[in-house]
Amino acid sequence: MSKGRKFGVLGTGPVGQTVAAKLAELGHSVFVGTRDPAVTLARTSPDTFGNPPFSVWREKHPAIELGTLAQAAAHGEILVNATSGSGSIEALKAAGEGHLGDKILIDIANPLDFSKGMPPSLSVCNTDSLGEQLQRAFPSLKVVKTLNTMNAYLMVGPAQLVGGEHTAFVSGNDAAAKATVTEVLKSFGWKDILDLGDISTSRGTEMILPIWVRIWGATKTPMFQFKVVR
Amino acid sequence: MSKGRKFGVLGTGPVGQTVAAKLAELGHSVFVGTRDPAVTLARTSPDTFGNPPFSVWREKHPAIELGTLAQAAAHGEILVNATSGSGSIEALKAAGEGHLGDKILIDIANPLDFSKGMPPSLSVCNTDSLGEQLQRAFPSLKVVKTLNTMNAYLMVGPAQLVGGEHTAFVSGNDAAAKATVTEVLKSFGWKDILDLGDISTSRGTEMILPIWVRIWGATKTPMFQFKVVR
Repeated sequence: MSKGRKFGVLGTGPVGQTVAAKLAELGHSVFVGTRDPAVTLARTSPDTFGNPPFSVWREKHPAIELGTLAQAAAHGEILVNATSGSGSIEALKAAGEGHLGDKILIDIANPLDFSKGMPPSLSVCNTDSLGEQLQRAFPSLKVVKTLNTMNAYLMVGPAQLVGGEHTAFVSGNDAAAKATVTEVLKSFGWKDILDLGDISTSRGTEMILPIWVRIWGATKTPMFQFKVVR
Repeated sequence: MSKGRKFGVLGTGPVGQTVAAKLAELGHSVFVGTRDPAVTLARTSPDTFGNPPFSVWREKHPAIELGTLAQAAAHGEILVNATSGSGSIEALKAAGEGHLGDKILIDIANPLDFSKGMPPSLSVCNTDSLGEQLQRAFPSLKVVKTLNTMNAYLMVGPAQLVGGEHTAFVSGNDAAAKATVTEVLKSFGWKDILDLGDISTSRGTEMILPIWVRIWGATKTPMFQFKVVR
């Protein structure tokens, strides 16, 4: 993928930060969007997982712009959904259908439900998925689900683990959009990229999460991933 | 695992056949159980997936005994649930709680629901699993979920794929039972065996199925498996 593309990253949590920083490092123009930028910047204490507040990250990445979800969506030719799964539909509504248009949305979120305690379950699965919900809610948008089976560091740095010998899955209805996202993945260092089919195959990758949290518990590290051996 | 152990395999489909044949090849005493042995033996046409009728397989494995589910359960010190997930509870009831006792049940079934067409969905998932259902229905039984993330050939012959460099998951409440099942897995050739924790972790491995069927579709072969790269 050539440098200088415009990306809009929706979500300022650790996943959004990590993906935005990588895209900027690769020479793209990155705009990060959040519901209320003033509130996001005003936070001074770590989040519930112990990550430093957004303002600390922002000081290290002055070239990355920050604004509303609508501004980030307007800026990006390619959008990234790094919001929490439970709030993704609302975040995209706030971004505005006019700003989303028929752009590519790289959906890396998962429909995690923490309301029943740990480990989280899924708020949608089996006969539907977050990827499909987003595609149904915004039919013109080209939703491509990917990278949702791993932590943020591996998303943008697969080579950190056994030289990148593990698998990134891609799901989506639009072949050209998947080809573009595949170029983004290759620029992150991905070598094994498996196209599962249309957006309904998001069910499969989102349903990886229950085993993901258990492998994390068993191995005591989030630095693992799945390789489809074939 | 020493030779000459007694196994009861519940289910005479391709998975039961493959596991029973491997156990017999390893020198164990194997008894295969089915709801109605006369009906199972009387079939002369291939099953819905094109597999030859049971009688053809049986002629090749004369040392393996065939009888009712109750006879197979009575015979085995270690039991294998190779029935279809939708019929597993009923099959175990037919086997009889007295014959199941506090034995180990190696549960390799999946709660596949074909009622909504292909690809199958799951009849239970997310907040429960077939493994947990079986454990709740038969509290004395030591249910150990394993091998349910792959086809039958790989279950008993992991080395057929990249020298066995992929992962078998184990879930169960009883540590000693998991240790015994781990010995069985090693005798099949498994090298990477990952204990996920108690039987509730079956949710994770059973929820692999939706991506399994999609990878099958994408790669056009069922001869693949998952390696947890770490």
